[in-house]
Amino acid sequence: MMENYQTPRGTQDLLPETTRKWQKVEDLIRNLCDVYGYEEIRTPVFEDTRVFKRENDSSDMVNKEMYTFSVHGEDSLTLRPEGTAGVVRSFVQHKMYGRLEMPAKLYYMGEMFRYERPQKGRYRQFNQFGIENIGMKSPLIDAEVIALGYSIVKALGLSQVKVLINTLGDDASRTAYRGALREHFKDSVGELCADCQRRYEQNPLRLLDCKVDSEHPSMQNVPSLQQYLTPESKDYFDQVLAALDALEIPYEIDDKLVRGLDYYTHTVFEVVSTHPESGSQATVFAGGRYDGLVEYFGGPQMSGVGFAMGLERLMILAEAEEVALGEEESLDVYVMALGQVGTLPLELATQCRAAGYHTEFNIQPRSLKAQFKSVDRRKAKVAVIAGESEAANHQVNVKFIDQQRQITIDQDELITTLDAYFQQEGEEQA
Amino acid sequence: MMENYQTPRGTQDLLPETTRKWQKVEDLIRNLCDVYGYEEIRTPVFEDTRVFKRENDSSDMVNKEMYTFSVHGEDSLTLRPEGTAGVVRSFVQHKMYGRLEMPAKLYYMGEMFRYERPQKGRYRQFNQFGIENIGMKSPLIDAEVIALGYSIVKALGLSQVKVLINTLGDDASRTAYRGALREHFKDSVGELCADCQRRYEQNPLRLLDCKVDSEHPSMQNVPSLQQYLTPESKDYFDQVLAALDALEIPYEIDDKLVRGLDYYTHTVFEVVSTHPESGSQATVFAGGRYDGLVEYFGGPQMSGVGFAMGLERLMILAEAEEVALGEEESLDVYVMALGQVGTLPLELATQCRAAGYHTEFNIQPRSLKAQFKSVDRRKAKVAVIAGESEAANHQVNVKFIDQQRQITIDQDELITTLDAYFQQEGEEQA
Repeated sequence: MMENYQTPRGTQDLLPETTRKWQKVEDLIRNLCDVYGYEEIRTPVFEDTRVFKRENDSSDMVNKEMYTFSVHGEDSLTLRPEGTAGVVRSFVQHKMYGRLEMPAKLYYMGEMFRYERPQKGRYRQFNQFGIENIGMKSPLIDAEVIALGYSIVKALGLSQVKVLINTLGDDASRTAYRGALREHFKDSVGELCADCQRRYEQNPLRLLDCKVDSEHPSMQNVPSLQQYLTPESKDYFDQVLAALDALEIPYEIDDKLVRGLDYYTHTVFEVVSTHPESGSQATVFAGGRYDGLVEYFGGPQMSGVGFAMGLERLMILAEAEEVALGEEESLDVYVMALGQVGTLPLELATQCRAAGYHTEFNIQPRSLKAQFKSVDRRKAKVAVIAGESEAANHQVNVKFIDQQRQITIDQDELITTLDAYFQQEGEEQA
Repeated sequence: MMENYQTPRGTQDLLPETTRKWQKVEDLIRNLCDVYGYEEIRTPVFEDTRVFKRENDSSDMVNKEMYTFSVHGEDSLTLRPEGTAGVVRSFVQHKMYGRLEMPAKLYYMGEMFRYERPQKGRYRQFNQFGIENIGMKSPLIDAEVIALGYSIVKALGLSQVKVLINTLGDDASRTAYRGALREHFKDSVGELCADCQRRYEQNPLRLLDCKVDSEHPSMQNVPSLQQYLTPESKDYFDQVLAALDALEIPYEIDDKLVRGLDYYTHTVFEVVSTHPESGSQATVFAGGRYDGLVEYFGGPQMSGVGFAMGLERLMILAEAEEVALGEEESLDVYVMALGQVGTLPLELATQCRAAGYHTEFNIQPRSLKAQFKSVDRRKAKVAVIAGESEAANHQVNVKFIDQQRQITIDQDELITTLDAYFQQEGEEQA
């Protein structure tokens, strides 16, 4: 009956040595979301396919990379490829647009799914943290959103990052610019990749995003969107930059930055790692302002802004910058058993655990030497030794490993003895 | 373009007022796992279908309730209906059976998926926390596993729970008992439900699990497995009970308890709520010992024991027992803006957040009255008022709401002023 099942292609298990680090990063993110007033929302892992597959969407994500299926003859479902659509769907379904205090400030953290060719640092199931600030439009909010992402990256200890920022302007700006791009590329479009030929028709802004044709001569002297901005759009962008200046967040304006999704308007940004090892996977977090999504899902006309951060990539960058995340696992207490002591080791361990000490106990009869080897391997600070003769007197031996000191105490003094030791220990380290 | 998309049937959004409570419960669970030495493992949301669909499995879960699909012509995938199979698959894939210190102690927490008829407290996407202790067989471990689950339930504040326990014995015990059950039901099987007729053939132990036929006359005088236990199986069970006695965990032996999955052996248990509102959804957590699963996935012959706890149900029971989980959301600081103060409110808010204070700021020009209404609604403890004339002198007004006291300070004294106030505040509450 031997079968050798593996994780499905493009997915991975996160084992304890890894989840310890993830938990630390997730706690840091949750704490910063708290002080910035973002609250967690959890939407289902799958949605009605139409939540993601919107008309006129030219992105690869929607066109090629979705896990779409239907079961038992019900509507087509899709595993979420990103977090924003589900959050906005939920915002409308639960009528959050009617809240007294706007904007709604939401964050999500969870698994996303894209059917892509697996490669280093890119998985078919991956984890994203993201925020959505919905219901109010202000350059101050755009800056605040960037500030939260930036503060997470800094708190994590990443030093080699830079903020790239651009504006896509309002509808009028983009309509004018799309015309200019079609004009610019009209003679060369036949030489570009198949994706670019589709983009030329559907949304020529996305030509600037192409990884394949980025060296093509026609890409070198592309007109800049800046020249086509309406005065209102230019003023909005200037205010975003002024707010970033006030917060002392350094940035570079990158007028080729257009982002891979079609719903963006005004501010778009991408925070990238400049670490040499980051290679083609340099994006730390990215996002922008969007209009029309709330309306698309049946709500009122309302603007939003958000970003998404890939957690696998964040962990890789933390590793590359040698950020210390993994505390080495160690025990507070190991309970040893000598002779016929029945359930006593389990009882003592359970007492220690109830007092908050990370504790293991010897389960099956083993030699003293083998048990001390476990104490050593598990880096236990205290060994509690349940011996037959002591047990008869309701006593127990306690050995403080660092001091090589052993005492015999009444069993009901165990927790106060441990408390005294660990309190002193804590003070010495402080 | 108005579309009214909803969460897919049988799924739900968890909104901030709910996730606040979930986070609290999850933190409590993680902390207790820590002290008991269980470490988190995260397996993919989907697995190769064969990981769940094992030969001769008679459970409804595998037979009817799975989300199974395949995309792009690849192998059939299934959204995990439970956590154990993925964890054991991972245990084998990563050769954890070769570790120096056994048993492996793993926990998981995440979404599971079953295509069932939705009803109160039962969702198609639901969340389970569970543990698996793999690689060693001892009555002390069975008791320790129950103790961890029980301590979580108690720490959460649930008082109305009881532990039901039974043993399925070893293979020899069950073979003898299955024969006895087939004999007992041989004349009445035709009167039982279609599921029971299948169970009679595949695994007659599961007849005792039937909700439909529980009142049928043939269920009344069923032989007890206890009579068919081998001496070794009886001794093992007695030791489990002795360990529970030593830990002062009350239990009832329920010899009809057989659990819905086919891989259990020896100890099985189910911790149920006795609260009147729990109704048919009374199980808090349940599990048991299993042999053969590690081997099935291609590892050596090794025994394991674990349980799963449904988090949706846990939250419902906590609500029914009126456990206090939701702290009311409140702000530390609200930054008001008076007149033309530009980005100053954002700057001050960012300073407060960097110091760890949960802070909001007024984004768009509003009257003083409207802004104080926000201070009030958000239950802010301190209002920081950025006024035009004060700003010109690098000053700011600070109002302590509970004391109705307002002072004017230099902007760079803001954080020390807040620190002093909140420290005093904390001391008064302690």
